[in-house]
Amino acid sequence: MHSTTITQVRVIDLRFPTSRDHIGSDAVNVDPDYSAAYCILETDSGLEGHGLTFTLGRGTDLVVSAIQHISTGIRGRTLEELTRDLNALYLNLTGDTQFRWLGPEKGVIHLAVSAVLNAVWDLYAKSEGKPVWALLADMTPAEIVRCIDFRYISDALSVEDAIELLTRGKLGQSERLAQLEREGYPAYTTSVGWFGFSDDKIRTLCQQALSEGWTHFKLKVGGAEQDDLRRGHIVREQIGWTNKLMVDANQRWGVEEAIRRTRLLAELNPWWMEEPTSPDDILGHARIRQESGVRIATGEHCHNAVMFKQLLQAEAIDVCQIDSCRVASVNENLAILLMAAKFGVPVCPHAGGVGLCEYVQHLSVFDFLSVSCSLENRVIEYVDHLHEHFVAPVAIRRGHYLLPKAPGYSAQILPASLAEFSFPYGQTWQASSEQNGKVDEVHIIHA
Amino acid sequence: MHSTTITQVRVIDLRFPTSRDHIGSDAVNVDPDYSAAYCILETDSGLEGHGLTFTLGRGTDLVVSAIQHISTGIRGRTLEELTRDLNALYLNLTGDTQFRWLGPEKGVIHLAVSAVLNAVWDLYAKSEGKPVWALLADMTPAEIVRCIDFRYISDALSVEDAIELLTRGKLGQSERLAQLEREGYPAYTTSVGWFGFSDDKIRTLCQQALSEGWTHFKLKVGGAEQDDLRRGHIVREQIGWTNKLMVDANQRWGVEEAIRRTRLLAELNPWWMEEPTSPDDILGHARIRQESGVRIATGEHCHNAVMFKQLLQAEAIDVCQIDSCRVASVNENLAILLMAAKFGVPVCPHAGGVGLCEYVQHLSVFDFLSVSCSLENRVIEYVDHLHEHFVAPVAIRRGHYLLPKAPGYSAQILPASLAEFSFPYGQTWQASSEQNGKVDEVHIIHA
Repeated sequence: MHSTTITQVRVIDLRFPTSRDHIGSDAVNVDPDYSAAYCILETDSGLEGHGLTFTLGRGTDLVVSAIQHISTGIRGRTLEELTRDLNALYLNLTGDTQFRWLGPEKGVIHLAVSAVLNAVWDLYAKSEGKPVWALLADMTPAEIVRCIDFRYISDALSVEDAIELLTRGKLGQSERLAQLEREGYPAYTTSVGWFGFSDDKIRTLCQQALSEGWTHFKLKVGGAEQDDLRRGHIVREQIGWTNKLMVDANQRWGVEEAIRRTRLLAELNPWWMEEPTSPDDILGHARIRQESGVRIATGEHCHNAVMFKQLLQAEAIDVCQIDSCRVASVNENLAILLMAAKFGVPVCPHAGGVGLCEYVQHLSVFDFLSVSCSLENRVIEYVDHLHEHFVAPVAIRRGHYLLPKAPGYSAQILPASLAEFSFPYGQTWQASSEQNGKVDEVHIIHA
Repeated sequence: MHSTTITQVRVIDLRFPTSRDHIGSDAVNVDPDYSAAYCILETDSGLEGHGLTFTLGRGTDLVVSAIQHISTGIRGRTLEELTRDLNALYLNLTGDTQFRWLGPEKGVIHLAVSAVLNAVWDLYAKSEGKPVWALLADMTPAEIVRCIDFRYISDALSVEDAIELLTRGKLGQSERLAQLEREGYPAYTTSVGWFGFSDDKIRTLCQQALSEGWTHFKLKVGGAEQDDLRRGHIVREQIGWTNKLMVDANQRWGVEEAIRRTRLLAELNPWWMEEPTSPDDILGHARIRQESGVRIATGEHCHNAVMFKQLLQAEAIDVCQIDSCRVASVNENLAILLMAAKFGVPVCPHAGGVGLCEYVQHLSVFDFLSVSCSLENRVIEYVDHLHEHFVAPVAIRRGHYLLPKAPGYSAQILPASLAEFSFPYGQTWQASSEQNGKVDEVHIIHA
């Protein structure tokens, strides 16, 4: 077998002007421009690894710079060398003795590690001719365990625990795969209830989603009390009370306010309350869960496996919302999937944005095939924007993700889109006054 | 009174090549180049506000870029406008609806907020003709409270709690000030026991520190078990058993390993064990504290007030190590000082680096004058490097910080030093092969 050497890493600042249509708006993120720090691993074999991390517009350039730093750790190395010990690669990318001061393993530099590792997994899966979920499902338990950094989580999940879970996960795998081939993986839609949408638009979108076969719907809350309830009842009027409704406050409240507001929203019979308070507040989430009586979900802003470990240890969450880009790619999500399974908490990934749906389907499919082996209380988020820019976009049928079949990690963007939306010189931005991030374009949530 | 308008913000990437002499080396940070993302607020009144955040070399450019983004929030505004509501300023600098995705309130972007706010506090204190500690001590409780973001901490510290503590803190303030004038604020030295130092060098430095009047000494651990103990006993042989010895593992261990190693180190009778595990692991620290029987300290990598809140709520720490640059300047540290006082945990600031000693003395002096009102079990870290670059460096006498008297926040660096150590074009770096951050210069801790 000819070895594949990474000859060059190209990094692109990619921004879609979604804020112009209030797409993705919530109580905190009022004007997101769905964006990505995107990297391409060029090789001498013709294969390319594509990876991204999701951002919201301003500041994407910081992540681009961080990727340029971090990718010095892979440039010139062979794919075989990198994939022989994927945890060593993780430690290499996160362990720069000077760079780690800026985290460690959180924020800008960890988002950058995620993009680079996502690209490595994409390249790895392409070189094996498999989608990432199949690459993972075909690995032995020992191979999976070698992708994971146990340093700071072994008090909650030992190597032996992981091997045991994964060994059990081999049983019945082909039946579960056949089930996914038939039915797909269940999903929910967030596209009906963005914060900036009018009541009428919500009604129309609910009707449309119902007709497409959706059964789980998420609504953004965190506005005035009466507005949240009015919007919630509008959704309930449309979808009825047997379909599931989730509410999402996007970190808007302090702990005591979150308890009060969640109790008020209980009249909507929400399936979960998402991000009621600061994403760092593990003990706060535990208290909100205990005192509100509503199932609690969080994770899209949970910055590493140590934080997820504690959310599980503190019994703070009923739903574990992994993110494919905030933590370090497949490596760190394997740790989180295994911890969630050990603690008996279902994983329902955060998606939407750009590329997140494409990524997380692989993680949930692997979770069902090999880790939790269950679909109970498990749904992947779905948002219907920007998929047209992908080479192999997600396919949805009656509220389910269909199994992705193309080799790789599914988040490769079309060359024309990379050109048009690159910032600030792509066609979309050259025509815009926003290109220089002028002061008057900056919106402050609390001001 | 003539108003002061911020006309321009200059940002400098400043790096000192300390790794060449193993200064600052520990079990994780093996080759730090003490650095700073440094900013200067230029005004139309002739006053300048200088602020920095401490970094370790590579990646400082990311923080510089982040400061350039964030300072759009203060350029063109008047000092009076900014200081009228310092919490509004905090919310403004942290609340950019797109930028906050990269944190929120952690990592690169929060380090940048700290530098900008440190510069604002410097400018504010200079304009009032006072050192920052005196500016704070002269404020009313209501004025202090208006600097604090209570959103996510009010479940642990209400506005009323804070007012009550600060009102009590007014009693006897002049006596405490007189005490500090006479004796200074107690300190400890970390300069004797860096990880890269030989046994002989440790002996010599201990003797020298004893002769200078030091009574509290910190040793870096986290190497091989026998090496840690040997080095510890060398220090004990030199300083005896009545002087205090602290040990610092700089996040080297997982939770169970940390418990085991801390128990082993108990034979040195350490006054505290610092950073035994991941800085994010609140519950882990609580368990290490409970099961090792040694006092636990952490905080230099604790990224915001929500994390400090939980360390206190979980009874995870005996010593609260605030940092002047990782969290958002005086604003966020006021919240942490007040929470620590409410929970009865002494604050012993992290210092060293570059500028940290200069900064934290103000915070500890204010803590003694107005918040905890106690010196019991309280010492400020001291490291004897790089002070010669400051306009008004700290003054140490027999193991105590002398009260800083110059107006401002003490971390203004001399123009010649700013020029010589700016990266990569300053004289120090132009002569060096390190200037381009070449691949072979990057050290990975775990590789």
